[in-house]
Amino acid sequence: MTEFKINQKDVFFIVNEQLDYGRLCELERYQGLNRKTLDMLVTEAISFARKAVAPLNEIGEEKGLTYEDGQVKCPQEFREVFRRYGENGWTAAARDPEYGGQGFPNMMRIVINDFMYGACQSFNMAPSLTHGAAHLIESFGSEELKRAFVPRMYNGTFSGTMCLTEPDAGSNLAAIQTTAYPDGECYRIKGNKIFISWGDHDIADNIVHLVLARIDGAPEGVKGISLFVVPKYRLDADGNPGEPNDVACTGIEEKLGLHSSPTAALSFGAKDGCIGYLCGEANRGLAHMFQMMNSARINTGVSGMTLGSTAYQHALQYTKQRIQGRDPAKRKQGEVPIINHPDIRRMLLKMKATVDGMRSMIYTAAFWADFAAESPDPDTRDHYQALTDFMTPIVKAYCSDMGFKVCETAMQCLGGYGYCRDYPIEQYMRDAKIMSLYEGTNGIQGIDLMGRKMRVNEGAMFSAFSREIQAFFENHRGHAGLGSRVADLEHAFARVSEMADQMRQRNQADPLQWASYTYPALLCFGDLVMAWRLLDMAVIAWDRAEQKGKKNDFYRGKVAQATYFVDTTLPHTMARAGVCTRSGREIVEMPEKAF
Amino acid sequence: MTEFKINQKDVFFIVNEQLDYGRLCELERYQGLNRKTLDMLVTEAISFARKAVAPLNEIGEEKGLTYEDGQVKCPQEFREVFRRYGENGWTAAARDPEYGGQGFPNMMRIVINDFMYGACQSFNMAPSLTHGAAHLIESFGSEELKRAFVPRMYNGTFSGTMCLTEPDAGSNLAAIQTTAYPDGECYRIKGNKIFISWGDHDIADNIVHLVLARIDGAPEGVKGISLFVVPKYRLDADGNPGEPNDVACTGIEEKLGLHSSPTAALSFGAKDGCIGYLCGEANRGLAHMFQMMNSARINTGVSGMTLGSTAYQHALQYTKQRIQGRDPAKRKQGEVPIINHPDIRRMLLKMKATVDGMRSMIYTAAFWADFAAESPDPDTRDHYQALTDFMTPIVKAYCSDMGFKVCETAMQCLGGYGYCRDYPIEQYMRDAKIMSLYEGTNGIQGIDLMGRKMRVNEGAMFSAFSREIQAFFENHRGHAGLGSRVADLEHAFARVSEMADQMRQRNQADPLQWASYTYPALLCFGDLVMAWRLLDMAVIAWDRAEQKGKKNDFYRGKVAQATYFVDTTLPHTMARAGVCTRSGREIVEMPEKAF
Repeated sequence: MTEFKINQKDVFFIVNEQLDYGRLCELERYQGLNRKTLDMLVTEAISFARKAVAPLNEIGEEKGLTYEDGQVKCPQEFREVFRRYGENGWTAAARDPEYGGQGFPNMMRIVINDFMYGACQSFNMAPSLTHGAAHLIESFGSEELKRAFVPRMYNGTFSGTMCLTEPDAGSNLAAIQTTAYPDGECYRIKGNKIFISWGDHDIADNIVHLVLARIDGAPEGVKGISLFVVPKYRLDADGNPGEPNDVACTGIEEKLGLHSSPTAALSFGAKDGCIGYLCGEANRGLAHMFQMMNSARINTGVSGMTLGSTAYQHALQYTKQRIQGRDPAKRKQGEVPIINHPDIRRMLLKMKATVDGMRSMIYTAAFWADFAAESPDPDTRDHYQALTDFMTPIVKAYCSDMGFKVCETAMQCLGGYGYCRDYPIEQYMRDAKIMSLYEGTNGIQGIDLMGRKMRVNEGAMFSAFSREIQAFFENHRGHAGLGSRVADLEHAFARVSEMADQMRQRNQADPLQWASYTYPALLCFGDLVMAWRLLDMAVIAWDRAEQKGKKNDFYRGKVAQATYFVDTTLPHTMARAGVCTRSGREIVEMPEKAF
Repeated sequence: MTEFKINQKDVFFIVNEQLDYGRLCELERYQGLNRKTLDMLVTEAISFARKAVAPLNEIGEEKGLTYEDGQVKCPQEFREVFRRYGENGWTAAARDPEYGGQGFPNMMRIVINDFMYGACQSFNMAPSLTHGAAHLIESFGSEELKRAFVPRMYNGTFSGTMCLTEPDAGSNLAAIQTTAYPDGECYRIKGNKIFISWGDHDIADNIVHLVLARIDGAPEGVKGISLFVVPKYRLDADGNPGEPNDVACTGIEEKLGLHSSPTAALSFGAKDGCIGYLCGEANRGLAHMFQMMNSARINTGVSGMTLGSTAYQHALQYTKQRIQGRDPAKRKQGEVPIINHPDIRRMLLKMKATVDGMRSMIYTAAFWADFAAESPDPDTRDHYQALTDFMTPIVKAYCSDMGFKVCETAMQCLGGYGYCRDYPIEQYMRDAKIMSLYEGTNGIQGIDLMGRKMRVNEGAMFSAFSREIQAFFENHRGHAGLGSRVADLEHAFARVSEMADQMRQRNQADPLQWASYTYPALLCFGDLVMAWRLLDMAVIAWDRAEQKGKKNDFYRGKVAQATYFVDTTLPHTMARAGVCTRSGREIVEMPEKAF
C-alpha cells in the first residue's frame, strides 16, 4: 500500500517549461551533458525510487530496528539497496568523477532526492548523509583522506554520518564538549554524541563519522570547534575495514516515525582507543560543517515537500475511488466518488497548490545554486549565491511545516481510514514531522532568515531576491489573464518588504520583540515565494489552459492552483505581516509564572 | 513520563469566576447541590484522573492490544480502573439517581471528561461510550431494557458502544445495510459494522452495543433506520451474562494512535443467532442516536482541547528546565532555560491562549446546555438549546483541529526530544489526530454549521448566538483597558456575520460554491468564540492584573493571552471571511484530471 506516487508531468513541467534546466549544460563544467541526459536521469531516478527504494518503506515499518549488544540491526533488504544505490551512481550523481561521482549538476541531486525521499524517507537518509559526509571530506580533507574514504562512500561500501548534537549541545553548538587530543598525525577522540541519524547499523561495511570536537586547549565557543573523520573501523593496509575504532553505540531512540532509520547515541573513545583525522583547518570545523548543514537543510525541505506530495497523490486516488454520499448539485444519480464533494476538492486543490509550489520553490533554489557555483562571471555567482543563502531557511522551515500540513490534510480526505495503518498516509505524516525539528528547528530558521540573512553585506541577499521577483512583476503585471494576481503579489511583496524594514530596525533596538516574530515573518516570505512560483507556472500554462479539449486539463490545473493560492493565501500573508510588526509586547513581558 | 498535567487554577477560574457555575444549583433539579459540592467534584475528578487513569496511558501504549481467536485482550489494569470508574460514580456523574447516576448537572460530565480524557484518551473512551449508550437506553428504551442494562453499565460491570459505520456507510449513514428481522418481541440482527470503538475487549463482563439497523422492509434512506440494543452475551434469568449472542469480532485496526482503544470490526448474526431489542421508535433510530452523537461530538472537542492542554503543560515544564543558548537580551549570564527565548515564548503563549480559550468555549457550551435542559421558562430553554446546537459543530471541529495543532507546537518546543517516545507529546499528538476524523469529519461539521444550523427556524440558532455576543459588546466596549480589543472583536463579528449572510444566499443559489468554503467559515466562527471567551476572562482578570505583586501574575496571563490572541488571530479571521465569499470558482470547476 505504500507505493510511491508522483505526477511526473508536474516534475517535467518545472524542470523544462518553467526552469529550462537544459541551460545548466551551457556551464563549462556540464558541457558534456544536455537536456536529454538530464531528462533521462529524472526518468531513471523515478524508476529506481519506485522499484528499489519504495518497497523498503513498508519493510522498514514492519521489521523495524533492533539494538542488541551495542549493535543495531536493520532489515537486510536495506543493505542490498544501499549498495545498489551507490553502485548505480545515485549517491554521488552530482559529484566529481575523480572520486567516483557522476558529474551531474547539483540540482540533479535535489531532484533525485525528491523521488528517493518520497519513496522511503528512513532509507534515503543513509545515502544522503553518506553523500554529505563524503562531500565534506572531498571539499576539505587531505588527499590521503579523500582517497581512503570518498570513493567507497560514494559506491555504497561505506556509509557516513554527521555528529554534531550532544546532550547539552543541541540548538547551541557552542556548548560542544567532545575533545580531540593530538596523537602524532592523528587525534584521540573522546566524547558523546546523540541523535546521530544512521549512527550505527549493518547495511554498510564501515561507518565514517564526521565529528565536531574541540582540540584540547582550543578557544571556547564556536571558534574552537574542529571537524574530524572518525571511522567505526580503522582501515587496514589495503584500505579495508580492520580493527574496531572504539566507537560504541549506546542505544537508539524510539521515535514517532522514521522507524527504520536508527537514531543513535554514540560514545567515542570510552576506552581511549578512538582515532580521528582532522578534516580541513583546525578551529574551522563549524564553518566546514555548514556546507553539509546547508545541504541538509535543503534536503529537509525536500523531504517535507515530497512526503506531502506522495500523501497528496494517495489522497487523490482514494477520493476518486471511495463512493460516499450523493452529488450535492445533483449532477449525477446515486452515490458518487467523494472527489465530487466540494470540501474534499478544497482540500485536494490546497494540497496540489502547496506541493507544486514547494517543488517549484525547491527546484528553483537548486537551479540557482548551480549558477552560484559555476557561473563564469563573479557578479553572477555572487547574485545566485545570495539567492541560495536567502532561500535556504525558507525552504527548510516552510516546506517542512507545510509538508506536514499536507500530510495532515491528506489524512483528512480519507476520514477514519486515514488514521489506519492500512493506508500509508499516517506513516508519511509521522516521518514528515521530524523535518520541522532537526537540522536547526524552524524557529532557528526564522532567526537565521530575519537576522543574519537580512543583515550581512548590507542586505545583499534580500536585494538579490527583490531583483528576481521584481523582474517577474515587470514582465507579467500586464498579463491579460493573470495580471491582477501578479499585482496582488506585488502589493503583498511591498507590504512584506516594509515589514522586513521595520523588523531590521527592531533587530538592534529591541531584539526580544524582534525575535518574537521572526518565525511568522519567515512564513510571510514563504508565502511570497510560493505565490510567485505558482504564478510563474500559471503564466506559462495560460495559453494552453485557455484552449478547449481535455488534453489541456493539466494546464488548467496549473492556472487554477495559482489563482486559488494567491487569492486564499495572500490575504493571510498581509495579515501576518501586520502581526509581525505589532507593538504589543505580551511575548516579551509575560511573567514566567503567568504561563 | 506521561503524567497528566493541568493547571487547576485555570479550571476554577472558568467555572467560578467566569461562569459562576454555582448558578446551576438554582435550577430545581440541582437544588440539593451547591458550588462547594461542584468544586469538590472537580477536585476529586482531577485526583482520580491523576492517580487511577493517568498511569494507564503509558501501560496501554506499552502493552497494547492483542486480537486472537476472535477475542480482544487489553492490559488488565484497564479492567480494574473501568470497574472503579463506574463504582465511584464517574461514568454516570450527570445521570439520574434512579438508574444509578449521581445527579450532577450535565456540565460536570464535560468537566470530568476534560480530566479523564487528558489523563488517558484511549481508556476514557470506554466509560464515555458506556455512558452514552446507557443514556440512550435510559432516554428511549422500555422500562425493562432500562432495568436490565442501565445500572450495570453505569456501575462499571457492563460497557457500551455505538455501532453506526459500515464499510460502505461512513459519512453517509443513509447507506446502512444491517438488517433487523422481527422475531417475536425481539429482532434477529444481521450485518457488519466497522470502526467500533471498544467494540470488543475483556475489561467488562458484557458489551452492550447500540446498533443502527433497518427493520426488514423499512423505507430507504435515513427514515428507515432503527436503533437496537444488542448485548454481546444474552442475559440469563438473573440478568447476568449468559449465552453468547452471535456477535463476533472479526478484527481490530492498527492505528496511528489510541493504541489501547480497540477499534473493532463486528459481525452480527453470522450464524443467525443474534438477538436485538428495539430501543425507542421504529425508523426513528437516527434521531435517537443523535443524542449520543451530539454528545460524542462535544466530547471530541473536549479530547482535542485536553490533549492540547496536557501537551502544553509538558512543554511548559520542559522549557523551564532545558538549558540551551544565551539570553538574547543579555539579561542573564551564561546559558539559560529556553523559556527565555522569544520564539519559545511565542509558542507557549499561543498554546496557552488556544487551550484556555477552548476550555472556556467548551465549558460555556456545556453550561448553556444545562439551562437548555432545565430552565423553567420555555423561551429560555429554547434560547439555550439554540446556543447549544450552534456551538456543537464549532466545538467539535475547531477544538479537534486546534488541539492537534497545540500538540504539534508543544512538540516543537522540545526540539528533537519531542519526536522521541521518552516524552509523552508524540503520543498526545497521535491520539489527538482522530478527533478531526471521527464523529463526522470536520468537513461535515462545516456543512452542518453553515447549512442546517444557519437555516433551521429562520436562523434562530445564529440569532441566539448573536444576542449573547452582542450583550458582551454592549457591556465591555467601553472598558478602559480592553475596550479597543472588544471593538476589534465587534468589528470582526460584523464582518463574519456579513459573510454568513452572503453564504446563506449562496447556499440555495450555488450550493457547490457555498460548500467549497463551509469549513473555513466554521473556523471564522471558532476564532470569534475564542476571542470572545478570552476577552471575557481578561475583563474579569483586569483589575488584579493591573495591581503590583507576583501573586497577580496569574491574572496578567489571562489579560496577555487575550490581547495577544485578539491581535494576532482576528486579522486572519477577517482575511478568511473574505476568502469564504470570493467569486473564484476553481474548487468547483477544476476538471478531475487537472488535480
